[in-house]
Amino acid sequence: MGAALGIVSDDLERVEDILIKGATGATSFLTASTTYLMRAGGKRLRPALMVLAAHLGSGADLDVCKTAAAIEMTHLATLYHDDVIDEADLRRGVPSANEKWGNTVAILAGDYLFARSSSIAAEVGGEVPTVLADAIAEVVQGQVRELESAYDVRRSAEQYFATIREKTASLIEASTRLGASLAGCSPEHVKALRQFGAAFGFAFQLADDLLDLAASEEELGKPPGTDLRDGVYTLPVIYALEADPRIEACIGSPDPDVETVRAGVLESGAFEHTLALAEEHMRRALSMLEGSPECPARDSLERLTRLIVDRVPAFE
Amino acid sequence: MGAALGIVSDDLERVEDILIKGATGATSFLTASTTYLMRAGGKRLRPALMVLAAHLGSGADLDVCKTAAAIEMTHLATLYHDDVIDEADLRRGVPSANEKWGNTVAILAGDYLFARSSSIAAEVGGEVPTVLADAIAEVVQGQVRELESAYDVRRSAEQYFATIREKTASLIEASTRLGASLAGCSPEHVKALRQFGAAFGFAFQLADDLLDLAASEEELGKPPGTDLRDGVYTLPVIYALEADPRIEACIGSPDPDVETVRAGVLESGAFEHTLALAEEHMRRALSMLEGSPECPARDSLERLTRLIVDRVPAFE
Repeated sequence: MGAALGIVSDDLERVEDILIKGATGATSFLTASTTYLMRAGGKRLRPALMVLAAHLGSGADLDVCKTAAAIEMTHLATLYHDDVIDEADLRRGVPSANEKWGNTVAILAGDYLFARSSSIAAEVGGEVPTVLADAIAEVVQGQVRELESAYDVRRSAEQYFATIREKTASLIEASTRLGASLAGCSPEHVKALRQFGAAFGFAFQLADDLLDLAASEEELGKPPGTDLRDGVYTLPVIYALEADPRIEACIGSPDPDVETVRAGVLESGAFEHTLALAEEHMRRALSMLEGSPECPARDSLERLTRLIVDRVPAFE
Repeated sequence: MGAALGIVSDDLERVEDILIKGATGATSFLTASTTYLMRAGGKRLRPALMVLAAHLGSGADLDVCKTAAAIEMTHLATLYHDDVIDEADLRRGVPSANEKWGNTVAILAGDYLFARSSSIAAEVGGEVPTVLADAIAEVVQGQVRELESAYDVRRSAEQYFATIREKTASLIEASTRLGASLAGCSPEHVKALRQFGAAFGFAFQLADDLLDLAASEEELGKPPGTDLRDGVYTLPVIYALEADPRIEACIGSPDPDVETVRAGVLESGAFEHTLALAEEHMRRALSMLEGSPECPARDSLERLTRLIVDRVPAFE
């Protein structure tokens, strides 16, 4: 993804400074815990999309960079809490915050990042605090929806779509929307970039859910099949269950038969079917860029969009 | 406390409606979990103080009631997370959310309330989103500070004061500050009410920490000595340790000798010493109301302030 971001590397460095400064607390222990995941790496996908969207308008000024940092901070906050919820011991290839310091620190570090992110959003003002707060509420709503259907072998594709729209697409949509609107794009242009973000988010989550079944532990930074063990039955699994009801016997508990489910997803055509849907959302995202001026930022957004599906490896 | 609030009961009903409506989510399960603690009761102390402060100015309009709801929502959010952190099984005399639904739901319910509270604060605009976000960051910072000194028998009075300023006083200070400033009070008047809130918060936490040692399970809605078991050594314990180092042997683990510590706190004079400090902050709070017009709202604030210390029962 780096190659697509050369034109905004200065902006992203500025975002990084705001992130670290914003997460710095009153004690060194608090700061160590709140900056832990940001220092562990991460793609900074949301800031990158936001800054690029801003370059389709007047560019990424300080307000854009602050908002990008606020959005990334809320994303990081949800990761801290996710890892407590999933009892995950790895994140980005390093021990999760809960594994390193315990659940209490991970919960409080997430809360602190939520608070700091709201504070930075409030500094920017305008529509930013509302759009960000509403996006976080949607993310949490999606997480609760996912929880409600945990280990439910009858989870429908519709339930899955509602969940990923909230859990993943909403914050990416907020990123491109705010990038465009802070950079003075016209309301129609903002709307197109908002729809770009939503479609990108959908494609991204579909690809992510395929990767959890198809990628290696090395590629993921955590063991594959994590969703299956957590009882999160994603679209490829839902499609595979429709095609071959025998797969039901392999799931439904925290100790699923991952290999048989993987084989079933491949043989039933569920993998291809899900990949095709991801590609459809990818094409929809690209089409939403058609009204944007031809420029390096648009090229980069197009390259990032194509990368979503390219990173899903051929299922062995 | 009810008798002191007659004059603002309509305002507090309005706050209650905004609270319930604001916490309502997309699924009935989400709503059940986010409204659970607010339906379980609670004193609504922060909204009451805020609305009363507003009545020292032009009164409690919709923005005041919204802000009061936002503040109470963040307070409730921290309670959900606190109960996960403390592994508490009771809150307000009913099972805690984590006990009822598990940690995951309690974490997400808290996150949802944080998000909704930011969203309501953003609707009001002005200084509200910043003041609220900064207060939440302080609360979390205080919680982390408390965690850093857990089971530390060398915790100093200074560390304790820094913690309660952040953990408790900051949000109460934000309440009276915003109540006064939204109601158009002069900068000097806002400052006095801010200092009133800070002193009230200090006195309140000191009294709360005395109650945890002095009150019965029935009065508290949870077992007394909870702080001792959680390794939170509050001012009466810090004072008792200074006076009688033998108490050290009774604490330092999750299984303290609560009765011996209680006796030591009483015999060493630590109880009286802490109570005197609470009374000093109470008097400071009252003095901050002296510049306010004589009116029923001021009377109510004075009565609430005196109640803080009155509710600490004589140590048996």
